[in-house]
Amino acid sequence: MQSQKKIAVVGAGLVGSLLAIYLKRAGHRVDVYDRSPDIRTVEFSGRSINLVMSDRGWKALENLGLEQEIKKIGIPVDKRAIHLGSESLNYQYYGKEGEAIFSLSRGILNRKMIDLAEAEGVKFIFESKIWDVTLSTATLHEGETERGEWHDLDYDIVFGADGAFSRVRHRMQRQSMFDYSQDFLKIGYKELHIPANADGTHKLDKNSLHIWPRGEFMLMALANLNGSFTCTLFMPHEGLNSFEQLKDQETLEAFFAKHFPDTKEVIPNLVQDFFKNPTSYLVTMRCYPWAFKDKVALIGDACHAIVPFYGHGMNAGFEDITVLVEMMEKYGDDWETIFDEYQKSRKPNADAIAELSYRNFMEMSSKTADEKFHLQKKIEKWFAAKHPEKWKPLYSRVTFSHQPYSEALAEGDKQNAIMQEILAIDNIEQIWDTEPIEHRILELLK
Amino acid sequence: MQSQKKIAVVGAGLVGSLLAIYLKRAGHRVDVYDRSPDIRTVEFSGRSINLVMSDRGWKALENLGLEQEIKKIGIPVDKRAIHLGSESLNYQYYGKEGEAIFSLSRGILNRKMIDLAEAEGVKFIFESKIWDVTLSTATLHEGETERGEWHDLDYDIVFGADGAFSRVRHRMQRQSMFDYSQDFLKIGYKELHIPANADGTHKLDKNSLHIWPRGEFMLMALANLNGSFTCTLFMPHEGLNSFEQLKDQETLEAFFAKHFPDTKEVIPNLVQDFFKNPTSYLVTMRCYPWAFKDKVALIGDACHAIVPFYGHGMNAGFEDITVLVEMMEKYGDDWETIFDEYQKSRKPNADAIAELSYRNFMEMSSKTADEKFHLQKKIEKWFAAKHPEKWKPLYSRVTFSHQPYSEALAEGDKQNAIMQEILAIDNIEQIWDTEPIEHRILELLK
Repeated sequence: MQSQKKIAVVGAGLVGSLLAIYLKRAGHRVDVYDRSPDIRTVEFSGRSINLVMSDRGWKALENLGLEQEIKKIGIPVDKRAIHLGSESLNYQYYGKEGEAIFSLSRGILNRKMIDLAEAEGVKFIFESKIWDVTLSTATLHEGETERGEWHDLDYDIVFGADGAFSRVRHRMQRQSMFDYSQDFLKIGYKELHIPANADGTHKLDKNSLHIWPRGEFMLMALANLNGSFTCTLFMPHEGLNSFEQLKDQETLEAFFAKHFPDTKEVIPNLVQDFFKNPTSYLVTMRCYPWAFKDKVALIGDACHAIVPFYGHGMNAGFEDITVLVEMMEKYGDDWETIFDEYQKSRKPNADAIAELSYRNFMEMSSKTADEKFHLQKKIEKWFAAKHPEKWKPLYSRVTFSHQPYSEALAEGDKQNAIMQEILAIDNIEQIWDTEPIEHRILELLK
Repeated sequence: MQSQKKIAVVGAGLVGSLLAIYLKRAGHRVDVYDRSPDIRTVEFSGRSINLVMSDRGWKALENLGLEQEIKKIGIPVDKRAIHLGSESLNYQYYGKEGEAIFSLSRGILNRKMIDLAEAEGVKFIFESKIWDVTLSTATLHEGETERGEWHDLDYDIVFGADGAFSRVRHRMQRQSMFDYSQDFLKIGYKELHIPANADGTHKLDKNSLHIWPRGEFMLMALANLNGSFTCTLFMPHEGLNSFEQLKDQETLEAFFAKHFPDTKEVIPNLVQDFFKNPTSYLVTMRCYPWAFKDKVALIGDACHAIVPFYGHGMNAGFEDITVLVEMMEKYGDDWETIFDEYQKSRKPNADAIAELSYRNFMEMSSKTADEKFHLQKKIEKWFAAKHPEKWKPLYSRVTFSHQPYSEALAEGDKQNAIMQEILAIDNIEQIWDTEPIEHRILELLK
């Protein structure tokens, strides 16, 4: 059992709220600060990609007994539904039967997490802007504006769960020996909307992640509980087929008619939504270290912001919490060691999921429409069914397991090299499910 | 000829001062701001690696007719003097006969550059702290402290020449689509000092860059005009043979006696200097873009801070100026195009010199003590003499040419691959200067 500390969590997002529950249960006094109004009292903003919860996320909830509560507000998604040019739909299952990720509305989940944390006795302070932190004393500096009057808030420990543009990290960044990078994708995104049918049912299969892969750009859709879908259009900011090009109603409608003809009926407010909703940016942010002595630590997007193409931003953040809590149980009151072991354990895995997420844009936007890729997936699934102990597909390792991301990435690269050899075999389309191929894969695995 | 603009340069370092001269001569009103006191009125700080000027730097001075003036305060250095464990010295010439880099004291050069700029009519404002800039209007925000009162300074154009920790860049960094990274080396450095002999002569050969290569760490020394040498000890911050280990006089003296025995007589104030001078950090900083519309541009270390192992920090910054001025001559009053063409031209070259500089630590600290490396250099020199049109060594490309850094890097990699093949030939030590080897190289070059 740890001695009670006075702890501040900056950021009342998903990771901040869940972390607060864990800290509270560990016996600490916990205050959570957020610069925005209480999300339970405001309408959602129209710039959120729906999120998916998978095994890593569930584990962090399970340990607190909150899993079932959250499952109620999610929709299981067990496959991709690929919308090719014509009317035809192609389904790609994510894992074995019964394996699914869960589509959740970020806003609804966030409200729920804050409710749960409050019920535990966590104190939330909304519309409170933390501009800076004094690392050596775990003091927050709060005020109305960046250049105005500030006042000090003293804590024993501060967690920066304040997202990709973290002010807590911003202070750490000014220290010597702090490595940092931010890389923007040329791809941006915009939220669109598929409303429910009049009877409240979904217009598309709700248990699929829908993708319209078009190479340099793609549209995707994830179901909400109320019968609607949240859609996200990913495309380059500039150049051919870019947000820059879609300047007026006419161009926009022609573009959708050409590339996404089957969305015409299901996205009735295309023009209005498109020009009302902001075009958002995608950034990969890496940094190190994540902690300052026994005083301040970063968690979630604040120390590893990734692009959304693997659906693992929240899952990786929740896994940070699982590991942090393990270290708390192991090292008791030695917070310096807790933070140090936490960051050492998580950093290589954060780098790995960043890389996997970056690569997955290509998989989603191009490869899902590619014959060879379909064949590869088929062969992998067939071989994995025969030799489950020898082959677990990369997606399953990442999504339906707790294997460290860094190991999943390394083994995925090995598997992919093997599959490239297999796909290069003459006539592979005809003989992919034969004994010689099975033996060849077994040989290559040695 | 351009229309007159009111231009602010933030940073009165080497790049800022030289840029100011060019801008003034182009007909503009030029104010230079620096947060430090006038360097002409203060003692130097003891944390500066001596710098070396080579062809790229000279070109920027030559265009203004300032080359001869500066050569007077420099010392030509045409070779490395490698101090191995014993008394033996090994010389490695940098280039062909007559080719040399020039050792210059950063402080003395900076004073001179400010004198020259003032003589041209540039206005310097020292002890003036620029904390922020409004990009869209080229307005500087100046004040005593970061959180205190600021006042505004309006310009047509602002240049950020304010170094690796640039405040101008700091503002640009908060924009979407601004890529940024900072990576600290595990190696730090500390300045030491070899005084002149009583008669004012140098204690070591002044026309050599002296290196004591010891693998993970090294000592180097560059001559000053007054008979002294500025020494720099590079070593890891932590671990075996690190700054962290050298905590007291006894450990320090034992360390130097063991690794640098021949410095005992020439560095008389070792203990005092070591504990008085700070241990400094080395960082590689990359970013993009470098400009905001036609209003603000970064130059020198502010947009590409590199580690000092190739001696090209200033040279790369001066080459930025050369390219910028070319664009000014080409595009007249179209500053947006000037800035855009400037950044597009310089970015790949800044990345290349960053990479070359990073790699050169290994060359200086380890390879200079390696037999195979000596042989490689000998073979390259021998072959280059026979086929000067076919082989220019990498060091010469970088230092004694104006070939873009990115091309130099690419060709250097090709040459190195060839040399690795040659060095792997049986008995190469005996046959390196024979006709078969010459033909083999010619063949590999095809």
